[in-house]
Amino acid sequence: MPELTAIVAGASGYTGALAAALLHRHPVFDLVAATSRTDAGRRLDDLYPEHRVPLILDAFDPDELGHADAAIVAYPHGAAAPVVAALRERGVRVVDLSADFRLRDPAVYADWYGEHGAPERFGEGVYGLPELRRYEITEADLVANPGCYPTATLIALAPLARAGLVADVVVDAKSGVSGAGRAPTPATHFVSANENVTPYGVGRHRHIPEIEQELHALGAGDAVVPAFTPHLLPLDQGELVSCYVTTTRPVGEDAVRELYAEDYGEEPFVELAERPPGVRDVRASNVCRVHVHADPRTGKVFTFAAIDNLWKGASSQAVQNLNLMFGLDERAGLG
Amino acid sequence: MPELTAIVAGASGYTGALAAALLHRHPVFDLVAATSRTDAGRRLDDLYPEHRVPLILDAFDPDELGHADAAIVAYPHGAAAPVVAALRERGVRVVDLSADFRLRDPAVYADWYGEHGAPERFGEGVYGLPELRRYEITEADLVANPGCYPTATLIALAPLARAGLVADVVVDAKSGVSGAGRAPTPATHFVSANENVTPYGVGRHRHIPEIEQELHALGAGDAVVPAFTPHLLPLDQGELVSCYVTTTRPVGEDAVRELYAEDYGEEPFVELAERPPGVRDVRASNVCRVHVHADPRTGKVFTFAAIDNLWKGASSQAVQNLNLMFGLDERAGLG
Amino acid sequence: MPELTAIVAGASGYTGALAAALLHRHPVFDLVAATSRTDAGRRLDDLYPEHRVPLILDAFDPDELGHADAAIVAYPHGAAAPVVAALRERGVRVVDLSADFRLRDPAVYADWYGEHGAPERFGEGVYGLPELRRYEITEADLVANPGCYPTATLIALAPLARAGLVADVVVDAKSGVSGAGRAPTPATHFVSANENVTPYGVGRHRHIPEIEQELHALGAGDAVVPAFTPHLLPLDQGELVSCYVTTTRPVGEDAVRELYAEDYGEEPFVELAERPPGVRDVRASNVCRVHVHADPRTGKVFTFAAIDNLWKGASSQAVQNLNLMFGLDERAGLG
Amino acid sequence: MPELTAIVAGASGYTGALAAALLHRHPVFDLVAATSRTDAGRRLDDLYPEHRVPLILDAFDPDELGHADAAIVAYPHGAAAPVVAALRERGVRVVDLSADFRLRDPAVYADWYGEHGAPERFGEGVYGLPELRRYEITEADLVANPGCYPTATLIALAPLARAGLVADVVVDAKSGVSGAGRAPTPATHFVSANENVTPYGVGRHRHIPEIEQELHALGAGDAVVPAFTPHLLPLDQGELVSCYVTTTRPVGEDAVRELYAEDYGEEPFVELAERPPGVRDVRASNVCRVHVHADPRTGKVFTFAAIDNLWKGASSQAVQNLNLMFGLDERAGLG
Repeated sequence: MPELTAIVAGASGYTGALAAALLHRHPVFDLVAATSRTDAGRRLDDLYPEHRVPLILDAFDPDELGHADAAIVAYPHGAAAPVVAALRERGVRVVDLSADFRLRDPAVYADWYGEHGAPERFGEGVYGLPELRRYEITEADLVANPGCYPTATLIALAPLARAGLVADVVVDAKSGVSGAGRAPTPATHFVSANENVTPYGVGRHRHIPEIEQELHALGAGDAVVPAFTPHLLPLDQGELVSCYVTTTRPVGEDAVRELYAEDYGEEPFVELAERPPGVRDVRASNVCRVHVHADPRTGKVFTFAAIDNLWKGASSQAVQNLNLMFGLDERAGLG
Repeated sequence: MPELTAIVAGASGYTGALAAALLHRHPVFDLVAATSRTDAGRRLDDLYPEHRVPLILDAFDPDELGHADAAIVAYPHGAAAPVVAALRERGVRVVDLSADFRLRDPAVYADWYGEHGAPERFGEGVYGLPELRRYEITEADLVANPGCYPTATLIALAPLARAGLVADVVVDAKSGVSGAGRAPTPATHFVSANENVTPYGVGRHRHIPEIEQELHALGAGDAVVPAFTPHLLPLDQGELVSCYVTTTRPVGEDAVRELYAEDYGEEPFVELAERPPGVRDVRASNVCRVHVHADPRTGKVFTFAAIDNLWKGASSQAVQNLNLMFGLDERAGLG
Repeated sequence: MPELTAIVAGASGYTGALAAALLHRHPVFDLVAATSRTDAGRRLDDLYPEHRVPLILDAFDPDELGHADAAIVAYPHGAAAPVVAALRERGVRVVDLSADFRLRDPAVYADWYGEHGAPERFGEGVYGLPELRRYEITEADLVANPGCYPTATLIALAPLARAGLVADVVVDAKSGVSGAGRAPTPATHFVSANENVTPYGVGRHRHIPEIEQELHALGAGDAVVPAFTPHLLPLDQGELVSCYVTTTRPVGEDAVRELYAEDYGEEPFVELAERPPGVRDVRASNVCRVHVHADPRTGKVFTFAAIDNLWKGASSQAVQNLNLMFGLDERAGLG
Repeated sequence: MPELTAIVAGASGYTGALAAALLHRHPVFDLVAATSRTDAGRRLDDLYPEHRVPLILDAFDPDELGHADAAIVAYPHGAAAPVVAALRERGVRVVDLSADFRLRDPAVYADWYGEHGAPERFGEGVYGLPELRRYEITEADLVANPGCYPTATLIALAPLARAGLVADVVVDAKSGVSGAGRAPTPATHFVSANENVTPYGVGRHRHIPEIEQELHALGAGDAVVPAFTPHLLPLDQGELVSCYVTTTRPVGEDAVRELYAEDYGEEPFVELAERPPGVRDVRASNVCRVHVHADPRTGKVFTFAAIDNLWKGASSQAVQNLNLMFGLDERAGLG
């Protein structure tokens, strides 16, 4: 197979650096450049010795980078859109890790994120959760990689939502500190995070509209307003969502398990587990591990899904999307 | 004040050892003996250097120990009841850390715990959550110290339950590893627990009937069947419960805060916080720190409560109960 | 006893805040003010809920604060000296947590720290390690609280140094992240520090001259140049020093133990342990726990000392010093 | 290349399971069986979901397993030797992870480990540290994989030892809890290990004779008796050794760096770093990362080496050895 060239824009953050590492080892893509706004001129393997990517970070210059076949953009929300637009104008097919192309409704975007950085392209992205939209991704030139929490939550809930079983849902999510990004802040200080657990973004976390949009698209009625609350946990990488679903009709353990087996039995990166998953089970992998339990006492269905927030929640899922976009084996370079 | 004598039965586990340490430093109680089934003959400060209690552990002999005024019993469920009975027969006033005297309905006990170890005394205990039953505790000779999860959950929910606001509730709980006890098991191995988070006891954790019983006693209708799921977290001590309440009627932020301020404004060990609590805020203290949020998007009320599972969730609450039983300042010896 | 008034200057950092908490609960000192350069106007119990000190932080104003009997100054090196000087001019007796008054030789200070902030007072401080200089501290108006590493190292080595047994020594030190202070930096980011251990300050850590000065003062010959290397560990609080001593003459286990028993048998805050100490044994206490081993294979003597870097390594030792300075029970307010 | 068959004997422990996972993904070796004394009949991916090896564990039967080309044996010391002997008798080429074939002197083995399990084969193993004995390994049928601590220590010290520079050396080693193995014990309980650091095996750790033997073989004089003390750290995987070398003659930074560059410049799995390494830099890799510092103050040379104790300290080094034994690219299957 002829090699494809790829770049990573924004490779000095955790997810961009990991995307660069995955592409650097990818059997088909050739990582030709990695850029950084803050660390141009530094070696990536100096910033991240563990990734062993011997590249010097460049400043972002679309004219030079526009010759690549593919790009993963790992910029913050708002700043990503213009970079994506510049690459798209030069014909580069893009997976964007930010929220800028995930939402369908500009008013919702404005409400949760403010002004969009490339409004003319708003809505161009395909929502890049392969387990839900594999075919669309295959055809896409711009894929909006889902947020980490929506990835786990939607995989956990999709079979129930599609079956029209979701009447109400509470999502209690737990994430390691890498989800907060590389910038040192009081919240990411070891002494604050260690031996601690705390809810954050209560009622206003930006992954809420994305979860709601996609749940509705899956078939949950518009009256379903998911409650979602993330918690910061004293671990590096790993994310668990615990979903408590009030169902529209009674449903037993066997029926629920069958639903999940039907939807996910053939998925290369979804594991259905007999026991509740732990985030260690999926560390440094593209796997989402799911356990479902129909609870006779409460009549609710509980589903739990574990991912690595930096991998399936971001960078390895981006590579999975690139693989699909370029007609490769979905698992290429993912272990 | 004349000194009161106290013993701890079962002082080689985490909660018993901490109870011994708190009584050893108590301004009124004099810790005269500490017993152990597994470590009799060893020094407590050899087992737990951090507590600095220079006592040799004894075997349990009710005839010898029956001269104490007070006892804290820290035995496992089932094994506790006969020890409690033996002490009560000799006139010792007891706080029992096990579940043996928490439940009202023998059938429920049998269902969740099996055979009771002293059926003739079943139901004699007062449920020892001072914030809910202070007066009863004052009069009691046998106090059933609540489980750690019920302590946090009931403090988090009581004002809503009393106000008849609870239509449905999901409780997602998170605990440090000390809650699993001192016995080394695969689950408590550092390598299993670290960099991990996992649900456990899904649908069948033994604190469920206790939470349900007390919620109903507080005024939540019998139709309210709380969903409760604990998670094991990579930290030593600390417990957070996140409660998502579907209310019987709409209720706003101000009204909810007022409810909590009314119930807890004078409580010495409940803190109402503007921000969501972290378990670090309450480590090694008898404090329960609570945050309440009326969520306009979902219409639900979220309440979060943090405790130290070994302290307010067990041993320091036991001392708080002893203080009440003996007419002392509720805060004596608690910092 | 008439109450004594105390202030903490620089109470928004970890050690200053803990000093304020200890004085707030002290049976004799009355904490009348706490100051901060960065957080004046904020409540201390908002910054540090776990300490429960309901004070509003002030800006530092020596004229107003100069009426206190005692002060603990918790400023960075260099910035501390002028604050200390201002307080001393107003008659306040001071324990300074910085390095500004620890060294005897101005050239050494200049070499390791640069310009001194109050050169006219250089050398006025008594080196505040009570186990070594109790009497001098009792008489002092300005006590230079030792660094955390020197505290543990000197307690670990003093009996050998006094006995003229130290021919050469390697000190390998390990500290939790709180030792790096409250400022969020790349090194203190949870994701950098967790699941990691790394040496730092190799060959040039600023506690080196202090250790050397005091070792020589204890009687180690001038030819003894201690090697000292600290390591950052993935824990909050706690510090362990492992000292490997080449002795001037052969010495056996019994003789070494006797040396330590003689020096420390009566010390209220030094514990001699049969087994190597862990930092958990001393968490949140003023205790230094020491184990000594004469190694027949190598002929060396190994000594290990564990402290809590924020307590005995800083704030509780400062209170111990204040207790001595004001003629109180050395243990007052320390547990 | 024709595929080679491999087995892992003792695959239910941490290192055996990882060896199985590495061989399962290896481009040349085909993992045909994995055995366990304690978990025969269980699926390996049930015991270790993170490794995703879909094999059922067998009981060990040399007659059946003797058809494999290669074996990695991961039994405890003492129990390994008979298993190795049985496999060798059937012509299987073996890498043994235990200490049973590392030592040259039966008396030393007896002294530190007791009776040997296959005395007729004592001494048959080649000490399998590829960076020191690559050629011998290539020719060997039985390779004794080094202990984790000796691996890091010997890589850290070899250039100095070969150059005759080591007059005396103190090795202070730090390891994550996985080094203590999978058995739950009081020391591996999360609550014991977390927020803690403690020396162990002081003066009597079994890796001492191995380090001494190989240091002498490298050229350190027989008078050199290395001091070695390991410490248990609150992390899963990762090991750092800090070596403090008193040199036989003065040596400067440039000269020392040149020594290391000469010895390791071409090594695929040794990294020479400008800064002190952290164990995160090498997690889940076969890399040993080394930093060397000639300390002008003390005249000593400090060298630091970081490895992943389960990888380069055990299982991936075993695969590196197998690669060499079978004439493959040394890096095959190692990332």
